[in-house]
Amino acid sequence: MRELKERILKDGRALSETVLKVDSFLNHQVDAKLMYNMGTYFKEYFKNHGITRILTIESSGIAPTAMTALQMELPMVTLKKQQSKILNGEVYQTTVHSFTKVMDYELTLSKKYINADDKVLIIDDFLANGEAALGAARLVEEAGATVAGIGIVIEKSFQVGRGKLEEKGYDVYSLARIGKLGENLIEFLD
Amino acid sequence: MRELKERILKDGRALSETVLKVDSFLNHQVDAKLMYNMGTYFKEYFKNHGITRILTIESSGIAPTAMTALQMELPMVTLKKQQSKILNGEVYQTTVHSFTKVMDYELTLSKKYINADDKVLIIDDFLANGEAALGAARLVEEAGATVAGIGIVIEKSFQVGRGKLEEKGYDVYSLARIGKLGENLIEFLD
Repeated sequence: MRELKERILKDGRALSETVLKVDSFLNHQVDAKLMYNMGTYFKEYFKNHGITRILTIESSGIAPTAMTALQMELPMVTLKKQQSKILNGEVYQTTVHSFTKVMDYELTLSKKYINADDKVLIIDDFLANGEAALGAARLVEEAGATVAGIGIVIEKSFQVGRGKLEEKGYDVYSLARIGKLGENLIEFLD
Repeated sequence: MRELKERILKDGRALSETVLKVDSFLNHQVDAKLMYNMGTYFKEYFKNHGITRILTIESSGIAPTAMTALQMELPMVTLKKQQSKILNGEVYQTTVHSFTKVMDYELTLSKKYINADDKVLIIDDFLANGEAALGAARLVEEAGATVAGIGIVIEKSFQVGRGKLEEKGYDVYSLARIGKLGENLIEFLD
């Protein structure tokens, strides 16, 4: 997605060989029009995948996912990162390790909001080690549903996430694939 | 907002005199089209307030806020509920007590994404005791900016939040105002 790559080059900041800060338009300040345009790209790529439901993980994935759900006219579900008091009861839950935050958290999905015949698109803001997306996929499959695709805003292609997801047979579509990061260096893969 | 009230009556569940569960369309499963329509209402109400920036608090406020920001063509900022490793540095921060979750958390706003001349609309999913909105307002005012309005999806009008916000002189606009909750009872104020 050309608009996204240009924005990453203009406003993103590589803080190290692994950390890309995009809090000026995605993670803290949010450019809603850009999020909408991301939704247009996700819709275009996944329109023939028979998707029935979109899942994301709180919280930076929510805005682009809501814009995608709006355009695809599909329900979305936000996976909570910890068990909420109100959500307890009938849920699927899995533990995910975050390398960025150096912590484990529980991903929670209410059984009411997924069905065995669902074809699910999982959308997230970043793909690095793939732990979050794999956790979401585990919940989908525990429900007997199918992971019909994984949409990523920014993929750090030099990390292992895409490989792990492809090993499972998932169709991964990333709007921007970063091949290399370094101090003041951002290189795209294609 | 009639569509929202009808949806609350159809799909919301009052679990007690204070807890309303709306996880089928707002807090867990999200109806993106309904979120978009909420944005239309917020835009209509606040269109002459000179708003320059919209703030929300992760994570259930993000979807309706993104839809509002899209239609008002304004930047939005999501206040993080804990200090992120990547965000540290130049931030405003304030402690908020959540009565629902019986815990304190830190609301964080990067100094880069607010200016002293900003007129800020704060949007959140629920207004109960007003602690989250007041915390967001403190950050806005610490930056020297102005709280130009507070938009709420669901207000529990029998709790003290609105009163506290109005005491501070804020213009509070809620899409649905609930006067009374009880087992299987949901009554709107107007």
